[in-house]
Amino acid sequence: MEKTFIFGHKNPDTDSITSSLVMENLEKKLGNGEAKAYRLGKINKETEYVLNYFKVQAPEILENLEEKSNVILVDHNNFSESAEGIAKANILKVVDHHCIANFETSSPLFYIAEPVGCTETILYELYMMNKVEIEPKIAGLMLSAIISDTLLFKSPTCTKKDEEVAKELAKIANVDIESYGMEMLKAGTDLNEFTPEELINLDSKESEAGSAKVQVAQVNTACIEEVLKDKEKIENAINNFIKTNGRNLFVFAVTDIINSNSQIIALGDRTDIVEKAFNVTLKDNMAFLPGVVSRKKQIIPVLKENA
Amino acid sequence: MEKTFIFGHKNPDTDSITSSLVMENLEKKLGNGEAKAYRLGKINKETEYVLNYFKVQAPEILENLEEKSNVILVDHNNFSESAEGIAKANILKVVDHHCIANFETSSPLFYIAEPVGCTETILYELYMMNKVEIEPKIAGLMLSAIISDTLLFKSPTCTKKDEEVAKELAKIANVDIESYGMEMLKAGTDLNEFTPEELINLDSKESEAGSAKVQVAQVNTACIEEVLKDKEKIENAINNFIKTNGRNLFVFAVTDIINSNSQIIALGDRTDIVEKAFNVTLKDNMAFLPGVVSRKKQIIPVLKENA
Repeated sequence: MEKTFIFGHKNPDTDSITSSLVMENLEKKLGNGEAKAYRLGKINKETEYVLNYFKVQAPEILENLEEKSNVILVDHNNFSESAEGIAKANILKVVDHHCIANFETSSPLFYIAEPVGCTETILYELYMMNKVEIEPKIAGLMLSAIISDTLLFKSPTCTKKDEEVAKELAKIANVDIESYGMEMLKAGTDLNEFTPEELINLDSKESEAGSAKVQVAQVNTACIEEVLKDKEKIENAINNFIKTNGRNLFVFAVTDIINSNSQIIALGDRTDIVEKAFNVTLKDNMAFLPGVVSRKKQIIPVLKENA
Repeated sequence: MEKTFIFGHKNPDTDSITSSLVMENLEKKLGNGEAKAYRLGKINKETEYVLNYFKVQAPEILENLEEKSNVILVDHNNFSESAEGIAKANILKVVDHHCIANFETSSPLFYIAEPVGCTETILYELYMMNKVEIEPKIAGLMLSAIISDTLLFKSPTCTKKDEEVAKELAKIANVDIESYGMEMLKAGTDLNEFTPEELINLDSKESEAGSAKVQVAQVNTACIEEVLKDKEKIENAINNFIKTNGRNLFVFAVTDIINSNSQIIALGDRTDIVEKAFNVTLKDNMAFLPGVVSRKKQIIPVLKENA
């Protein structure tokens, strides 16, 4: 068996990192000994907390992907969020929970996606389908990603299945979901050491709304004001990003994970899309969006519909 | 629950027709009473034989798809092979065994694809996953599609899984695979009543090879000469198709299912791709391709690689 590269999206979050590790575990149990997890960027604070807690090493960074390399994609399918050279790779499998966009293969492949809150919920089903036992450490990684993606089941992306699977995993991992989950999410909100440039790139997705090129970045926090104390510097970083990367709209969402709201900064020449989408008037380039926590369900589709 | 439209690709083959019916059965058993199978074209002779044998009614033809209709796609994902209006439909699920191309959704969905020979092999797994029993009639439909897509396990697209699933289904349906399968395949080779225009459209797929727009049509037969007795009329039909639909290459493959070979007619301004791909020189626009029976594995990818 040739080497198989497993990885999640750029700007990796806890789901992308742990899903790569969990998929490596599953592939090895299924006999693909050459499967190995990689990452496409820096480990964030939340993921660092998870890996330390369960004493698991972070995947190596993927330096380059040679032509015809065997790859397995987790937690993404969009080539623009994937590794350089993905278009010429040999994609064996995809396990994902996003819409399908900018994805194409010349051969049939194993592709499973479900409209659930987290990739790990689907991976749990694959363990069940293949009758492979989940070790406590692996269960801990999987549980952490579900907590992360669903903000402890509070996000509208969370499904009944995510919650049921999380409960099963918590038993195997032997952790209390509420207390562990809150600690983990809080660890992720420690944004102090990031520069404004890093902040707006921590978890950032490219998208399109009508003819507009859009970038939506998101950070989680326990205190919105704390993140926005350097608002002007963040705006400068966003404007630079817009210029360098040719975007019509950049939305930076600062999400309060305690109260489930978001404050957004919107810049670019198409901020009208934001005003129409959320029926707000931007003041100082900002708007407060009560109840909005999910980029995938509550921001990107709304922008698309109103472009 | 709102109405859900289930359908396979245009120019439906046995897999597309039976998978729609089987998916309707599964959805109903899972509580979606409003799911209904449709078809996007005429039933072919082979499928007619199958439906008669198992006493199942053909799905209704899909007349039009309103905006935001709920749909489930089986046996295809490419919008160009799907219903008119698919881009504005609400795609709930896809069950498929092809490469992913020209497919995009704005919301996450249930998508399962596997590199197996037939959609029904994946549907069998979905019955197992959901612990739903397969009735003899349904098993018969599923088995027929596997036999059809794999040419009784002789096609290189056939996997071990297809063969294993077919054996299980044959037990439930209580049919002998070999004798039933041969009769069914032969029924499909009765091409006498088709006009040349119909022949080249019976099972025809659009594709791209480099910058060339390509159409690859295929018919199965027990006697290649019999199909090509009106070669000139077929060539006229192909040339008309090329003009009307703007293709650079049309490959019409006449596949001998007894001996597992194909005779092809290639027309258009890029027949050089065919000559390079199969290392042949076209004579009278024709070439004989020994061992070639699968458009998906042995024709389309080879054309793409050599464009």
